[in-house]
Amino acid sequence: MEFLVEIEVRLPPTIASTERQRLLVAEMARGLELIQLGVIKRIWRIPGRFANVAVYDAKDATDLHSAIASLPLFPWLDVKVTALAVHPLEAESRAT
Amino acid sequence: MEFLVEIEVRLPPTIASTERQRLLVAEMARGLELIQLGVIKRIWRIPGRFANVAVYDAKDATDLHSAIASLPLFPWLDVKVTALAVHPLEAESRAT
Amino acid sequence: MEFLVEIEVRLPPTIASTERQRLLVAEMARGLELIQLGVIKRIWRIPGRFANVAVYDAKDATDLHSAIASLPLFPWLDVKVTALAVHPLEAESRAT
Amino acid sequence: MEFLVEIEVRLPPTIASTERQRLLVAEMARGLELIQLGVIKRIWRIPGRFANVAVYDAKDATDLHSAIASLPLFPWLDVKVTALAVHPLEAESRAT
Amino acid sequence: MEFLVEIEVRLPPTIASTERQRLLVAEMARGLELIQLGVIKRIWRIPGRFANVAVYDAKDATDLHSAIASLPLFPWLDVKVTALAVHPLEAESRAT
Amino acid sequence: MEFLVEIEVRLPPTIASTERQRLLVAEMARGLELIQLGVIKRIWRIPGRFANVAVYDAKDATDLHSAIASLPLFPWLDVKVTALAVHPLEAESRAT
Amino acid sequence: MEFLVEIEVRLPPTIASTERQRLLVAEMARGLELIQLGVIKRIWRIPGRFANVAVYDAKDATDLHSAIASLPLFPWLDVKVTALAVHPLEAESRAT
Amino acid sequence: MEFLVEIEVRLPPTIASTERQRLLVAEMARGLELIQLGVIKRIWRIPGRFANVAVYDAKDATDLHSAIASLPLFPWLDVKVTALAVHPLEAESRAT
Amino acid sequence: MEFLVEIEVRLPPTIASTERQRLLVAEMARGLELIQLGVIKRIWRIPGRFANVAVYDAKDATDLHSAIASLPLFPWLDVKVTALAVHPLEAESRAT
Amino acid sequence: MEFLVEIEVRLPPTIASTERQRLLVAEMARGLELIQLGVIKRIWRIPGRFANVAVYDAKDATDLHSAIASLPLFPWLDVKVTALAVHPLEAESRAT
Repeated sequence: MEFLVEIEVRLPPTIASTERQRLLVAEMARGLELIQLGVIKRIWRIPGRFANVAVYDAKDATDLHSAIASLPLFPWLDVKVTALAVHPLEAESRAT
Repeated sequence: MEFLVEIEVRLPPTIASTERQRLLVAEMARGLELIQLGVIKRIWRIPGRFANVAVYDAKDATDLHSAIASLPLFPWLDVKVTALAVHPLEAESRAT
Repeated sequence: MEFLVEIEVRLPPTIASTERQRLLVAEMARGLELIQLGVIKRIWRIPGRFANVAVYDAKDATDLHSAIASLPLFPWLDVKVTALAVHPLEAESRAT
Repeated sequence: MEFLVEIEVRLPPTIASTERQRLLVAEMARGLELIQLGVIKRIWRIPGRFANVAVYDAKDATDLHSAIASLPLFPWLDVKVTALAVHPLEAESRAT
Repeated sequence: MEFLVEIEVRLPPTIASTERQRLLVAEMARGLELIQLGVIKRIWRIPGRFANVAVYDAKDATDLHSAIASLPLFPWLDVKVTALAVHPLEAESRAT
Repeated sequence: MEFLVEIEVRLPPTIASTERQRLLVAEMARGLELIQLGVIKRIWRIPGRFANVAVYDAKDATDLHSAIASLPLFPWLDVKVTALAVHPLEAESRAT
Repeated sequence: MEFLVEIEVRLPPTIASTERQRLLVAEMARGLELIQLGVIKRIWRIPGRFANVAVYDAKDATDLHSAIASLPLFPWLDVKVTALAVHPLEAESRAT
Repeated sequence: MEFLVEIEVRLPPTIASTERQRLLVAEMARGLELIQLGVIKRIWRIPGRFANVAVYDAKDATDLHSAIASLPLFPWLDVKVTALAVHPLEAESRAT
Repeated sequence: MEFLVEIEVRLPPTIASTERQRLLVAEMARGLELIQLGVIKRIWRIPGRFANVAVYDAKDATDLHSAIASLPLFPWLDVKVTALAVHPLEAESRAT
Repeated sequence: MEFLVEIEVRLPPTIASTERQRLLVAEMARGLELIQLGVIKRIWRIPGRFANVAVYDAKDATDLHSAIASLPLFPWLDVKVTALAVHPLEAESRAT
């Protein structure tokens, strides 16, 4: 099942730059793993913001929560989840 | 998988009372079916409003949409869905 | 009487991890008590957030406030309460 | 148990003036009954609006809903309910 | 003239507990005075929140501001004031 | 006592132009009366909108409501009232 | 360039059912064309609503507007567009 | 003085197509005049919406209102105006 | 040209009281100057808040910004400006 | 392709004044470069706020993000981007 996940990163500008660097590297590494596991199917940067929108694939909301909570930046994330249903257009398009 | 479903009914006061009556009877009948099917697990009236909040159980968001769209009042409904994950407290409580 | 209780936990990421740990353990313990007392009837995690939604059962809003204020994390909680009325569908369903 | 009830009346200006008059007279009569029954304890007009805010006393949210739904203008009302808990200041003040 | 006053207390959890205690005691004392002076006519706790809603009686908005600004917690309060007009139902009810 | 009154006129474009004209002429006449009575002290157009913001002077919120409800366009108005307190700067300035 | 396009369909329940049917068939046909042209890359139903969220690919916002305005339901659509930038995670993932 | 003007056109889909056509032609003609008069300096379409954002140049808010109110679609427009001040960057850039 | 200026002062309660005192005295002094210069024509306290609403008179938005930015509390202010147009009622009233 | 970029600067008043000065000088320098590169086409100050609105020109949202992220104040900026489509009025006007 797919979910639209909108994430705003609220890392304060006052955080020490080494800690910031460590977090960003770890976040990138975990993000790549989630892509390779097929959990993150698409992800985009919201221009001008430290924010992204992504399509996640997870068994259910409990697994989705585990995936998001596994991100090193999780304590600083403001996350909005929208459950997605199949659209008749895609069903039709695949049937063709 | 469970979902929190908040529904506001926007049936205009100007609708003919026989049509209104027909719709409400059909809505009640379909609602009872969804309860008996285990799709609607709990449902409450929001006091003072023609609105309700309910806990639905569905395989995924696609099945949830089918259930909601099967309601006779669907064209007049304003619906907000929140996907729900298992809370550690319930997991713990059940394990005890 | 039942209430829908939506809770957002605003524990800052900068809190010391031992204090955080102590608070979370105490919160879990008090939560289990409220479940065993029948005050918390259902509780779910909002996926992607340090937040939950729950159904509380309390004599009135004063007792409900006491229950929520007894949570160790109370000073950090942002809580929204909705009083719930019986829905005709459940009344009908139970009568059957 | 007391509730804060905020009501906005959305009676369209296009309604026939006899029907409007009939509704307003019936609304006033039912309002007086609810005051005499002790259900409406206080009620104020929001200046500049066809709206009011009131303190209702009802056994629970189900009884509160019945009271509000008994108003002849109910199909045109936009109602927001807030459950109220006893404030320590009033408890203290009464104890004195 | 009456006012609906909604107050959210934004006292940070990090405030020293002795200072917090001192403030709460002083707030309670001043609140009782305002009740005895007839300025606060009714006050309720918003369940689940460090917040209240109250009915104040003051000569005008200037006197109302003085009353609210006299609360020891004033620097931490987020206050919303609604001017209240007499509702025809109460006028009618009193005339009876 | 002064009030800030923000008014949005929701006259539908579909209203008959003679009715519209009649209403606007009557509204202008009543508005002039309220200015001459000293009830409306200042009034401005919100640019680009059929809306205005004004400073009203009235004994209390009940009298303010009567003044606004006396406007011929009242059934189409969306009105927001803010009670105003004397600002120390004006008190100081007048004392000088 | 990709865009996140959120569409709410505001087709009134009072529209004649033959007109409604004609519009929906035409909408489906045009939607399939946009998929085959590669303009609509993904599309999902928002559960419980007559609404969808989609990923569009267009040269720029002008072409995107042409695509959306070509939908037969366009006069009834409430559309929100978010321009999307490439996310470093996808760039990194593709480079691997 | 410049203003940012955001306009949403709320022309109902049910308007007769000849009336709609007449209005759109007249709107286009008046828009071109305002461009030639230097009142509209830049104007853009908000993609996916019957909406635009523009930079107007007018002596003051009163003249700005006259310009907007001269648009044939004015009764259907939802308009938001932001007064703009000179930014130091442009002042600096012009001085160079 | 006149502007409606709504100001919320966000001075944190934790600021040292001597610094706070110094700022408030300077703010009062600059406010009086702006009144004497005819820039601030009217100003009111929003009851219950550290906030005010005022009518400013300035050549344009650039001069208005200079006036507001000259306030000693400027770094802590949350300011909302509305450009005001002459209302036909005032024009008419003055012509009389 | 053009974008409307609305920026709110959230530099805390508590930042050291030398650091603040250094940041503002660097921001001004980078802003001038973006103007000279044709990326920032117009920019205005929002009166009363440490905020601006600007028209950016960039190949796509990815390039736009790079431009905004190159601003020294970027970690403190709250940025909202709106993709802009060509408006028929400008197309028409240029064709003339």
